This record gives sequence, C-alpha cells and structure tokens, in this order.
Amino acid sequence: MDFKLELEKQGRLGKQAARRLAVMASGEKNAALLAMADALQAKQMVILQANAEDVARAEQRGISAALLDRLRLNASRIADMAEGLRQVASLPDPIGEVLGMWRRPNGLEIGKVRVPLGVIGMIYEARPNVTVDAAGLCLKSGNAVLLRGGSEAISSNLAMLRVLVESGEAAGLPAGAIQMVTTTDREAVQAMLRLNRYLDVIIPRGGAGLIRTVVENSTVPVIETGTGVCHTYVDDGADLAMAEEIAFNAKVSRPSVCNAMETLLVHRCVAKAFLPKMMERYHAAGVELRGCPETQKYHQAVLPVTEADWATEYHDLILSIRVVEDLDTALEHIARYSTKHSEAIVTRSYERARRFQREVDAAAVYVNASTRFSDGFEFGFGAEIGISTQKLHARGPMGLAELTSTKYIVSGDGQIR
Amino acid sequence: MDFKLELEKQGRLGKQAARRLAVMASGEKNAALLAMADALQAKQMVILQANAEDVARAEQRGISAALLDRLRLNASRIADMAEGLRQVASLPDPIGEVLGMWRRPNGLEIGKVRVPLGVIGMIYEARPNVTVDAAGLCLKSGNAVLLRGGSEAISSNLAMLRVLVESGEAAGLPAGAIQMVTTTDREAVQAMLRLNRYLDVIIPRGGAGLIRTVVENSTVPVIETGTGVCHTYVDDGADLAMAEEIAFNAKVSRPSVCNAMETLLVHRCVAKAFLPKMMERYHAAGVELRGCPETQKYHQAVLPVTEADWATEYHDLILSIRVVEDLDTALEHIARYSTKHSEAIVTRSYERARRFQREVDAAAVYVNASTRFSDGFEFGFGAEIGISTQKLHARGPMGLAELTSTKYIVSGDGQIR
Repeated sequence: MDFKLELEKQGRLGKQAARRLAVMASGEKNAALLAMADALQAKQMVILQANAEDVARAEQRGISAALLDRLRLNASRIADMAEGLRQVASLPDPIGEVLGMWRRPNGLEIGKVRVPLGVIGMIYEARPNVTVDAAGLCLKSGNAVLLRGGSEAISSNLAMLRVLVESGEAAGLPAGAIQMVTTTDREAVQAMLRLNRYLDVIIPRGGAGLIRTVVENSTVPVIETGTGVCHTYVDDGADLAMAEEIAFNAKVSRPSVCNAMETLLVHRCVAKAFLPKMMERYHAAGVELRGCPETQKYHQAVLPVTEADWATEYHDLILSIRVVEDLDTALEHIARYSTKHSEAIVTRSYERARRFQREVDAAAVYVNASTRFSDGFEFGFGAEIGISTQKLHARGPMGLAELTSTKYIVSGDGQIR
Repeated sequence: MDFKLELEKQGRLGKQAARRLAVMASGEKNAALLAMADALQAKQMVILQANAEDVARAEQRGISAALLDRLRLNASRIADMAEGLRQVASLPDPIGEVLGMWRRPNGLEIGKVRVPLGVIGMIYEARPNVTVDAAGLCLKSGNAVLLRGGSEAISSNLAMLRVLVESGEAAGLPAGAIQMVTTTDREAVQAMLRLNRYLDVIIPRGGAGLIRTVVENSTVPVIETGTGVCHTYVDDGADLAMAEEIAFNAKVSRPSVCNAMETLLVHRCVAKAFLPKMMERYHAAGVELRGCPETQKYHQAVLPVTEADWATEYHDLILSIRVVEDLDTALEHIARYSTKHSEAIVTRSYERARRFQREVDAAAVYVNASTRFSDGFEFGFGAEIGISTQKLHARGPMGLAELTSTKYIVSGDGQIR
C-alpha cells in the first residue's frame, strides 16, 4: 500500500484508540503493561531471531562497534525492557489527577484535570529498547502511539511490536493503541511530520541531525529533546576537592550522554590551585583537553580551543576549558554557548549560588552537584521519555506527567453570561 | 534596512532584554506597567491622530463597518487599554513561583520554579488593543515581546508602541523589552516564523487563515489559538427552561467570538417539547437555522443543514441543529466535528454529566452552563492572552501562567553520579 494512505489509516485508528485509552481505568492499563512484559520474555526467541537479522545486515554494512552494541539484543536486555514495563505499571496513573479546582463568584465550579495528549508520534534511531519504553510510557499516560524507529532495527522493532500488540490486545487494549510505521522509506518521516489531523505531538529521540530535521519540517507540535552543551563553573573560593569530583564525574562517567559536561569554566583566582591536578586527572583518564591560552600554562597536554569548540557537544572524552575573570564572565559564556540543558556552579558563596540559579537559563541549574543528574529516574519521576530542551510544554527530564495535557471541567446550575 | 537584518537585530536585542526581564523584581515590572498606562492616556492625542490615519486609509479601501469599528480608537477605548495595564500590574507575579520541591535519597534538593518563556512573537490582526494587552501580559510574565500587528492598524500600533517604549524605558525597562515589526511586508511574517534563534514561541491571534499560515509555516513553536466549533447537547430529561437559556446565551450573546455555540444537539425524546419554542426564540432574534430533517418538523424557518455546516465556525447568527438518538450519538458527533474548544451538556443525569465531562475531548467541558464562559477573566485568571486549542503547553484560556516555562533548581553538597 502507498505509505501515505497507510499512515492516514494508522492515524485514524490511533485517534479511535486514543478515545478509548483516555477513559481506561488504571487497573486495565497496568494489566496490559504486565501482560506485555511477560510476553516479551516468553517470546524472546522470536525477538532475538529478528534482532540477529538486523545485526547481520548491520555487520555487512560495516557499522561501528558502538552502534552495533546499541543494536544488539540478548536475554538480559529483553529482561530489562520487560522490567521497565513492570516499573511503569507500578507508577501512579497521571490521568484524572485534579491539578486545581475553584469556585467562581457566579457559582461555577472549575476544575483542571490531567488528560492524555491523544496520539503521540515517536521518531527515534538505532536503539530498539526505545520501542518498548515509549510504548509503555504512552500507554500508561493514556496515549496512543505511532512509532518510527531506525531502519537498522526494523526487524527487531517489528518483532517486538507484534509481541506488544498481541499481548496488549489480549489484555484489553484497543486496536491502534500501539502502531508502527512499517516502511523504512525516509519519505514516511516527512509524511508523519505533516500528520496534523491525527498526531497531537511528535517527540524525536536521537542525534542532532534527526532532531533538526523534525523541528524544521514538522507542522505537528514537537517536543525537542536532547542536545546538551553543559558547563561546570568552579567559583573563586570553591571547595576544590568537591569541584574536582564533580567536574570529573560530569565529564568522564558517561561522556556519550546529553547531560555530560562539555566545558569547564574556572575562576582565575583558583586556576593555579585547581587546574594542574584536575587536568592531570583528566589526562590520565584519556580526556583530550582543549583550553584557552591561560589553561595551557597548567598542563602540557592542552590543545588550543577554537570558537567552534565552545558550541560543540562532543559526546566523547574531549573537554573545553576556559579560565574566566569572574562570575559575570562565566554567566556571559554560558548564555552564549549553552544549549540550556544543564549547568552547574561549584561555590561556597550563598550570593553567587543564588545568582547562578536565578540567572542561568537552562532546564536544570545545579549548585555543588554533577550535571549528570539530569535524568527522569534521578529526579524521582520513575520513568523518562527524554529530556526536553525547549521551553514550551515540558522542560528538562520528562516523565509520565509530561505526556499529558489538561482540560477544564466546568460544573454549573444554569449559568449564562 | 533589509527587513531580515532588522528582524535579526530585533531578535538579538529581545534576547538581551529577556535576560534582564527574567530577573526584574515584581515591583519594577509593575512600576513600568503603571507608567505605561499613564502615558497612554497622557499622550492619547498622538495615538488618536495616528489612528485617524489608519481609519482614513481603511475607509478609502472600503473595508466593512465591523472591521472599521474594531480598528477605531477613542478616548474611552484608550482608557480601557490603560485600565487593562493597571489590572495586569495588580495581578500576582507568576515568575519565581515554586511549583514543587523535593529531596532525593542522595540528599539532592530539587525545586521546580516558574520562569519566563523568553522572547514571545505575537502575530495579530486588526484590533490595535492587542498591542497594549500583549505588551502588558508579556512584560508582567518577564518576557520580551516582538509584536506584528495587522497592516490596517500600523499607524496606531506604531504610535502606541512609541508611547509604551518611551514610558516603559523611563521607568526602568531594558531596551528591546517591547518591539514591533515595522514593515507591513507580508514576507516579514514568514521571516518571523523562522526566527528560531531568537523567538521562544509564537502566538497568533486572529482569523482561521492567519492561524493556519502560522501553524503550517512556523519552525518556532506555536501556541495555536482560536477556532471554536462549540456544541451544546440537550439531554433527555434536561431542565428545558435551563436548556433554553443556556442554548440561547451560547449562540446569541456574542456570536462573533470563538466560545459561541455553532451546533445544538437535542435528544430525540425532548425534541418535540424543546425545539419549537427554542427555534421560535432564535428565529425572533434573527438567527438563521440550519437543521437535520427531523428539526424541520418543528419550525418552518429551518433550512436543510449540509455536511459542511457541521464543521463550520459561523462567527455569526447562524446555528446548526441536529436531533440525536442518545448521548452516544451526541458524543460521536462532537468527536467528529468539534475543534476541541468548549462543549456543553444540559442534563439532570449524574451518570451522563460524568460521562460527558470524562469522554469529551475539549479544552473546557461544561455541565449546565453556557460555553461563553471559556475566557481568562471568567475563569478568574485576571487576564487573557488567547484561548489555546492545542494540547501542548497550554489548553483553554491562557493567563499569565501560560506565558511561562519552568526550570529545575538543584542544590547539592558535592553529589556525583
């Protein structure tokens, strides 16, 4: 079938399913989630077989070892996905929560109630676990979902979809609750980005290129996730031992993720006491250092930093370092190069901690802690669908509540205006 | 100057202003609002002169009396605008509100705090009062604003802008807090819709055509406002006197606005008791009636309704009427044709009231009240920037809180992950 017609059909079916999902009781949704978790494990042979096809195809095409590792499934990874669904089942249901209720002078009673968004489009890349995670989170929050995974993982994704849909529908989910774009034709993404009649939101998850394509071409509202050029500023008078642990953790613990630090800013007055030891530790850990001229005095391994470096998310063991005059210069630097994801200050000053938290415009602003905590689980949401770097609708780590909208429920006794 | 360069420059200046506005104390913002209100009245002659130019141009072009009325200013309308600014000054400041704060097992303290969106683009049509309203609401919520009014009102808008900017800056506003696109070139709107580097959100206010253009072409996130195909369903067993008042009010009190009813649905069992008198009252009030075949039995003035009617926002004294089998048919009709703005049921049944409020997907769902209450002032927000018909970020009447985002403030003692 022509994929545009297919998408239209899926959109219509998704809308129908969304009406039913919006009023499903929490118990029904949880039962489906648990059935889906069990089925994933019971049918893991089918999934692993499909995954082996993806892996073989990827190997033939000669993709990198890192990507291959992301793509590959095994019994333990399937168990993790199933466990993820069980955890989502155990979370409180966001739907129906009353966010406020008040009475107007004319006696009208107005309540603001949490409702699902409707139909969510998810566009993502290689990792097949996103298929299960996204399906689980969308279902729990009462939304229908239309998934579009990467072409590398198409066999795995389709196999998992079949298991999720069969087990979910057997447990009472309406047809269309979980759907997938089955073609790997890139044009299908373009068509999806124009499916305003059926999709209420599109959430892209993946590299900067994917996200840019979605933001630039979608007429459906988008929640932008992802890119993080995160800074840590070590203030004059900071506890330098603490600063070292935080700065090391923020860069080295997992450099490939968006909440990792890319730039270290150091107040001139502590540069000499802090940087030599800090940079030696980075160097020993294999971190490539790129610094302003002043930093080069403190370690022989420092390469000159370029203007482009300040704006780059390395996703790697590379760090830019700058010595700054004062907090204002640090704030200026952050305002200029930050992607408004996560920013940290290490300080002992009450006043500068307060200024930093107030003046830095970012989803998460830290005092004396690693930017690596920007994460739905670390924040205590029990789940994460991504980290929003936009200001509209959701900002920072997104859990179930961020997959919802609201409606006003107004109860009267014949009021007219 | 080339308008694209001009827009870039305004965008940059707006971003700078936004950083300052984000940390301005409420008292400073309120002082500026009050100064702006006073200046509008003190300089009303300049504004009225500029408005006379707009009116003369419009008359030459032969625009409709209704549009001319929207365009025309006088001392009392200017006083209303000034009063609006004073009211906004008296509202609580949304910025800095702590929406939640919790401690994690590792001792991290996480707070969710309301912050401004940044720079807001407002694109609107003829009514010059939107210039003042939007400037006031954006300023109070700590946002910079880039205004783009209709070309008909350009002289009035520029005159008011000058008064607002001069008085605002004299009272401490940063340069760039309130700006306007000065060219009436339509290409400037297109350029504005692509100003992602500087604009955090665009809010269009106006007719369906304007809103469609913005939604389809903007890469900046949009809050869609406006179109309302609103229904009132009169249930079996409803208090018919109450139903009559509500249905009359919803259609007739102000047919040109988005919360006015466009379609009346009536349960078959009460059609005979309800419709003849109701339709006569509409007819006497000059309402053109378009109904399904069954309604035509009850009044000779009923014209046949078409499929297109069900989906039309008349903005006029025209009403579509349909007799339905039961609540399910009413819900189906609403799900199919509603723009998800405001929907009402008139009923005495607890169960059906509950079902209607739960199952209807709309920004505001009423039991026994007129849809005309969907309005920021009627809801008690003290202000209104528009009524959102999308599900992302804001839904229904938008007050100051809807012009804000949030950020997470994380305070630690050296936590690493």
